[in-house]
Amino acid sequence: MHSQVHAIDWQQQHLRLLDQRQLPHQQHYIDCYNAQDVADAIRDMVVRGAPAIGIAAAYGYALEALHGGDLQHAYQVLAESRPTAVNLFWALDRMVALNHSSHAELVAEARRIHSEDIAANQTMAQFGASLLGEGSHVYTHCNTGALATGGHGTALGVIRSAWQDGKLAQVFAGETRPWLQGARLTCWELMQEQIPVTLVCDGAAAHVMKQQQQQGQGIDWIIVGADRIAANGDVANKIGTYSLAVLAKHHGAKLMVVAPSSSFDLSIANGDDIVIEQRPATEVTELHGSAIAPSGCDAANPSFDVTPAELITAIVCEKGIIPAPSTEVIASLLSR
Amino acid sequence: MHSQVHAIDWQQQHLRLLDQRQLPHQQHYIDCYNAQDVADAIRDMVVRGAPAIGIAAAYGYALEALHGGDLQHAYQVLAESRPTAVNLFWALDRMVALNHSSHAELVAEARRIHSEDIAANQTMAQFGASLLGEGSHVYTHCNTGALATGGHGTALGVIRSAWQDGKLAQVFAGETRPWLQGARLTCWELMQEQIPVTLVCDGAAAHVMKQQQQQGQGIDWIIVGADRIAANGDVANKIGTYSLAVLAKHHGAKLMVVAPSSSFDLSIANGDDIVIEQRPATEVTELHGSAIAPSGCDAANPSFDVTPAELITAIVCEKGIIPAPSTEVIASLLSR
Repeated sequence: MHSQVHAIDWQQQHLRLLDQRQLPHQQHYIDCYNAQDVADAIRDMVVRGAPAIGIAAAYGYALEALHGGDLQHAYQVLAESRPTAVNLFWALDRMVALNHSSHAELVAEARRIHSEDIAANQTMAQFGASLLGEGSHVYTHCNTGALATGGHGTALGVIRSAWQDGKLAQVFAGETRPWLQGARLTCWELMQEQIPVTLVCDGAAAHVMKQQQQQGQGIDWIIVGADRIAANGDVANKIGTYSLAVLAKHHGAKLMVVAPSSSFDLSIANGDDIVIEQRPATEVTELHGSAIAPSGCDAANPSFDVTPAELITAIVCEKGIIPAPSTEVIASLLSR
Repeated sequence: MHSQVHAIDWQQQHLRLLDQRQLPHQQHYIDCYNAQDVADAIRDMVVRGAPAIGIAAAYGYALEALHGGDLQHAYQVLAESRPTAVNLFWALDRMVALNHSSHAELVAEARRIHSEDIAANQTMAQFGASLLGEGSHVYTHCNTGALATGGHGTALGVIRSAWQDGKLAQVFAGETRPWLQGARLTCWELMQEQIPVTLVCDGAAAHVMKQQQQQGQGIDWIIVGADRIAANGDVANKIGTYSLAVLAKHHGAKLMVVAPSSSFDLSIANGDDIVIEQRPATEVTELHGSAIAPSGCDAANPSFDVTPAELITAIVCEKGIIPAPSTEVIASLLSR
């Protein structure tokens, strides 16, 4: 897939984004010419995944510079597109720090953010894969692959590298309602590389963990990404992650969070202070534009949840592995 | 809804079943003239819910007698329609015990099974509601209401009665993938009676439990039905129930299982011996006939899971309340 599909593709004067809402059925691209176009694409989930959002936002800012637009306005619309992924603000802050540079330099910075992300993915994939034993059974959630990042992936990058190292027996992918990123995107990425994957409805995760255990093929690791990591190691990630963390504890499975260092937000002491994006109820009550619940039904639609650090076996970033995450260990690793 | 909609409606010479697959969009009925018609309707989920399956099967058997069909064949096709709900076998066994009776007597027996179920629902609803305090927040899964039973409901019967008693603050309903019975049926039943309900994606249950707790409005009870209860109190119920049981324990919520005594299978010592129906992968990978996962994707589709007795606060049946279920207490209550 790396060679064929580019979820985020810089085209010199504009940005092409693969419309991930239409996968796996269609590979349709959307062209963005300014910051507002990119902000719309982020808000409407044309592009999603915390690292990919950061990269797209950086390009959006560079586009605005390239076309002589208002950079302060560009910052604002991009920053408001989605509140939870801290990579968005981290990438924008890198761009703003170069404000008095030429647009060529701003474009170069966005491209650097993009290529650094791919390199970081490859590094953390090796760190993460080193934690897995031979014949591992792993469970993942949402999509954290090439589509969610600059390329390769965070949690899915670990899975890809572990597969290449011959360590993986089987991947289970949670479908990840309401957007079904697991079903639509993760299964698609894994099937393209012939990595054995079984799709699981989110409510069936506990049953699968128990059944695999009874068959002597217990889930060894739950491997997920992150949208924002607090100073103490509490992790905001796609809704459903916290549920998997509790179920993993009950079934003796380990939990690995894989995210670049740009996903850490040391200004936030713990997960209680992370803003959780609430999205429209219709994303739960409708699918493909047709109703799957009674008209007017109230629905909760938190886009993320917070997993407390004490349920996390290890956080893996490009700077290393953080076992039993705590404020001290995180601060020490990130300051390297 | 009781007065307007009849999910199972005996029409003297045939059986009318509300096609629950088309709810809440359409109220379409299917007429059954023999056991095969009823078996098809059960297998294809026109009618679902363990008590409703038992009642429909009894009518199917009576229909076959009424039209001079082969009763042995009738038993066989009905028994094979769905393997997990024990009420199916319990109802058929009651019919078989009257084999040498007139068809009028067989029809009368099926009607008795139906009306006894409604009466049992009302009794257990009162028992269950008595366990709830004022201002309770409850979470339910799948559909266990008038649609899943002869009328009123098991778990949803408790919720209905608690609402009538003024004890309920809020109901959360899990959407229950892959068939979405929570979204399509439970929300529909509750909205018809203006009972406040919020729909929740299954993966968001843990987040909702934690968030409600942080707001001082913690979920007091998870209330679910059962398809088969082993002698020791292990409960097979709709996939996702076991997950909720583990999450309930973690968050200090209580778990109530509500089912008629016909859902107990004392021939099975514990849940490990309950046959779990595996349904087609396409029920997970497709919705409304269109794909929501890549073509050819493997998917697990266990229709039920098993919740061990130690995670259950109380089982409620029409004979009484069984706190901290065990083989001894269950045997003692059922022998009354």
